[in-house]
Amino acid sequence: MEQKEDKLKDVISHAKEYGYVFPSSEIYDGLAAAYDYGQLGAELKNNIKQYWWKSMVQLHENIVGIDASIFMHPTTWKASGHVDAFNDPLIDNKDSKKRYRADVLIEEHIEKYVQKNNKEIEKAKKKFGDAFDEVQFVATNPNVVRNTAKIREIEDRMRETLENNDLEGVYNLIMDLEIVCPISGTKNWTEVRQFNLMFSTELGSVAGDASKIYLRPETAQGIFVNFLNVQKSGRMKVPFGIAQIGKAFRNEIIARQFIFRMREFEQMEMQFFVRPGEELKWYEYWKETRRKWHLALGLGAEKYRFHDHIKLAHYANAAADIEFDFPMGFKELEGIHSRTDFDLKQHEQFSGKKLQYFDPELNQNYIPYVVETSVGLDRLFLAVLSASLKNEVLEDGSERVVLSLPPALAPYKVAVMPLTKKDGLPEKAQEIFNSLRMDFSCQYDEKDSPGKRYRRQDAIGTPYSIMVDHQTLEDNTVTIRDRDTMLQERVAIADLHRVIDQKVNFRSLLQQLL
Amino acid sequence: MEQKEDKLKDVISHAKEYGYVFPSSEIYDGLAAAYDYGQLGAELKNNIKQYWWKSMVQLHENIVGIDASIFMHPTTWKASGHVDAFNDPLIDNKDSKKRYRADVLIEEHIEKYVQKNNKEIEKAKKKFGDAFDEVQFVATNPNVVRNTAKIREIEDRMRETLENNDLEGVYNLIMDLEIVCPISGTKNWTEVRQFNLMFSTELGSVAGDASKIYLRPETAQGIFVNFLNVQKSGRMKVPFGIAQIGKAFRNEIIARQFIFRMREFEQMEMQFFVRPGEELKWYEYWKETRRKWHLALGLGAEKYRFHDHIKLAHYANAAADIEFDFPMGFKELEGIHSRTDFDLKQHEQFSGKKLQYFDPELNQNYIPYVVETSVGLDRLFLAVLSASLKNEVLEDGSERVVLSLPPALAPYKVAVMPLTKKDGLPEKAQEIFNSLRMDFSCQYDEKDSPGKRYRRQDAIGTPYSIMVDHQTLEDNTVTIRDRDTMLQERVAIADLHRVIDQKVNFRSLLQQLL
Repeated sequence: MEQKEDKLKDVISHAKEYGYVFPSSEIYDGLAAAYDYGQLGAELKNNIKQYWWKSMVQLHENIVGIDASIFMHPTTWKASGHVDAFNDPLIDNKDSKKRYRADVLIEEHIEKYVQKNNKEIEKAKKKFGDAFDEVQFVATNPNVVRNTAKIREIEDRMRETLENNDLEGVYNLIMDLEIVCPISGTKNWTEVRQFNLMFSTELGSVAGDASKIYLRPETAQGIFVNFLNVQKSGRMKVPFGIAQIGKAFRNEIIARQFIFRMREFEQMEMQFFVRPGEELKWYEYWKETRRKWHLALGLGAEKYRFHDHIKLAHYANAAADIEFDFPMGFKELEGIHSRTDFDLKQHEQFSGKKLQYFDPELNQNYIPYVVETSVGLDRLFLAVLSASLKNEVLEDGSERVVLSLPPALAPYKVAVMPLTKKDGLPEKAQEIFNSLRMDFSCQYDEKDSPGKRYRRQDAIGTPYSIMVDHQTLEDNTVTIRDRDTMLQERVAIADLHRVIDQKVNFRSLLQQLL
Repeated sequence: MEQKEDKLKDVISHAKEYGYVFPSSEIYDGLAAAYDYGQLGAELKNNIKQYWWKSMVQLHENIVGIDASIFMHPTTWKASGHVDAFNDPLIDNKDSKKRYRADVLIEEHIEKYVQKNNKEIEKAKKKFGDAFDEVQFVATNPNVVRNTAKIREIEDRMRETLENNDLEGVYNLIMDLEIVCPISGTKNWTEVRQFNLMFSTELGSVAGDASKIYLRPETAQGIFVNFLNVQKSGRMKVPFGIAQIGKAFRNEIIARQFIFRMREFEQMEMQFFVRPGEELKWYEYWKETRRKWHLALGLGAEKYRFHDHIKLAHYANAAADIEFDFPMGFKELEGIHSRTDFDLKQHEQFSGKKLQYFDPELNQNYIPYVVETSVGLDRLFLAVLSASLKNEVLEDGSERVVLSLPPALAPYKVAVMPLTKKDGLPEKAQEIFNSLRMDFSCQYDEKDSPGKRYRRQDAIGTPYSIMVDHQTLEDNTVTIRDRDTMLQERVAIADLHRVIDQKVNFRSLLQQLL
């Protein structure tokens, strides 16, 4: 656990030092759980977006992309269920003025009993050594049995009150457990209130109450309300998909773990519209397609875990998560959901407009079923960044920090360097730099010793470094150094463009998806 | 004027019909002044972004890009002046419940006198024919003279009251002029209030008042607060620039003219940090650089107008607009501003952090001066779309609608078509389509007659169409049709990739900028 926390700290500090991610508004001591992508982060993020977009839209004849606005008609969120049911139960401590999620306070209280049990088990393990039977011990040790019963009791009460929206019951549970505020240490609590997770604001064009709008809490609804516009203007035939990348906003009380859970975040979503009854076939297709997409990045198959949901959301008839081994452990990276016809049906009802598709092969109208793939862009960024950051001990015993990003995603594809700052080498290097920059994102780098420059390019993740040396002036060749193997090969300047393109083009990723 | 309105209507209807732009939340009868980019609009918008980003960041060694969050620490907007001085004077009619900008009501009243004068002038023109001397007439006709005096009087009172923030004076002017609400027809007005143009919302993590935050009204401040983070982590040396593309939000009372003025919009901004005293040299440099950038799009030099500001904003010591000939007439497309050290100085003061740069050549610390280039992405989209949309009469007297987008910006670069749906032509066409789609955004199109398909590709702006015919099966050549000239040339399949790449690659735009 300690090691994992260290790893996240390493990632955060590397991200800041090299311009990947800065705390937002840092000169004002930051804004909680908001981050800015720096000069390298913005490039990496853009490249991830491009990989997703090209693979979804360019490689699928029957998928197109849209870009809907963040502001939507407020009835959208009535129809989607977000106005009525997108809530967290909150409670304020009157002394500290701090606000908490009531369920989290209770869960943290439960965690204390879990810790107590763990301690008993550890103690017994030490005492009994190899002879220790944990199952037997847990079932018979009076302290553990008492704690376990207590845990069950609290969990049952919490579930019952929350599921029935019994906020007074939740309050009573907190009082009965004598839970105190971690800041003030007092039990001086307000009542528990439901707090909607949508950010709201006021449109200025209207006087009075009718002007309340929301920042979209998910991008999916922008696709659903445009379903017929896209289908008709694009002459799309079911099955077809609509993809979108965009910001969404959730007023999380507990936003944390760096860019993993932010209040402002970006989603890459695709809604695939299919014939009713065929949704589970397509659900399997998209699970497999998305699996391949992630694996093509080369971060390592062991980093992923595929997890089918047992308990389903009210709109879904099948759902799975792709989990990634983040520095904090395995957490959700992407969701694949068979959303049925829930959303389109709701929008039909609330808008009074038909949202049906005429299927010419079946000669029949229907509301399509929807299979969604939804990945958090910021989470994917964190996955790529954290899995790529490595401390390596080299053969000679020295250490290096290397960011082994997939080459197609790296901010700079190539660094061009003159061996020394004299003998016309900088001019030659600059000439090569200028011939490459039109097609590749490149950096010219002439400061410090070659070894130091290589280390710097390793740390920012540049996959290839071109060194211009004295031989270059004689035979028009340069060395290309591979970031990961650190091996150099000699290449003719005339071949550089082709060689680099092969290594860094998105084609190298996309071809693995066919 | 009528023609211009028609042209905007044409653009709006074409944009909707072919999936470029849809009204937002249209099934709920739309949300005022919000629009969604459809399947072709999203591609065009992305391509415009890429052209800007590549030209700014990739072609300038000393410019890097960032992506800051929309939510920022609220003190940012104190420092920038937006909390105190980013207001519109508003007034509500108590009967219609409609809200108006007080200055717009007064301006519309002035416009009535202007119209009266125009009528008098038209009448006199008809009466006197060639002998009519307009200057003399305006100076002597009693009606015109009286109206002109009235206009001056109202304008003077409006300016004086607004500049002194004398809201009661503005109210009195409206009452004195007996201005009525266009809806209710009554003079039953509320008082005039200042209404801040920033959207605000509440962060849920804090109980009480301290949680009010804003949706950023401009992207520039995200760059300023990150100035030192980028400079240090990127080892940047003055002069250097930071670029950014992102959403901003303004609670405009009067949002209109399609996507020209929306409450949610996207900016492409670059802030260039220079030595104090060198800002006007760089201001001239950026004016010229941005001029070339726009002209490279090939929409026609006559479409642009360069307009130096005489009255400057409080933070600027020089400013110019690049205006474009939109369907509604010439309007601002981009602004180039010499912003001095105003913003960084303000942030120093409000944050208490030093925001200075140590210049190793001068051996001196200073706050850099800033030259900004700021272009509205949605406006640029409208400029490209409207200038590209043409109704052409062909030699044979038939008409066609063609969207002559710059090829590098077109949503689909190529349409691949089989001449007929038999004889193995679709299979061959599909084979070519598959070989191109990895590198280019392509469409496969086999429905309807070739002529109809060409027209459809013309209307959506696809620059090249590849036709697979019977000769293809014999000699592995295809015809490639140019959207603008409608000429076809025969090309070997083996050369297709190279030929198309030459025509549609961003290189074709970027090379003009060197």
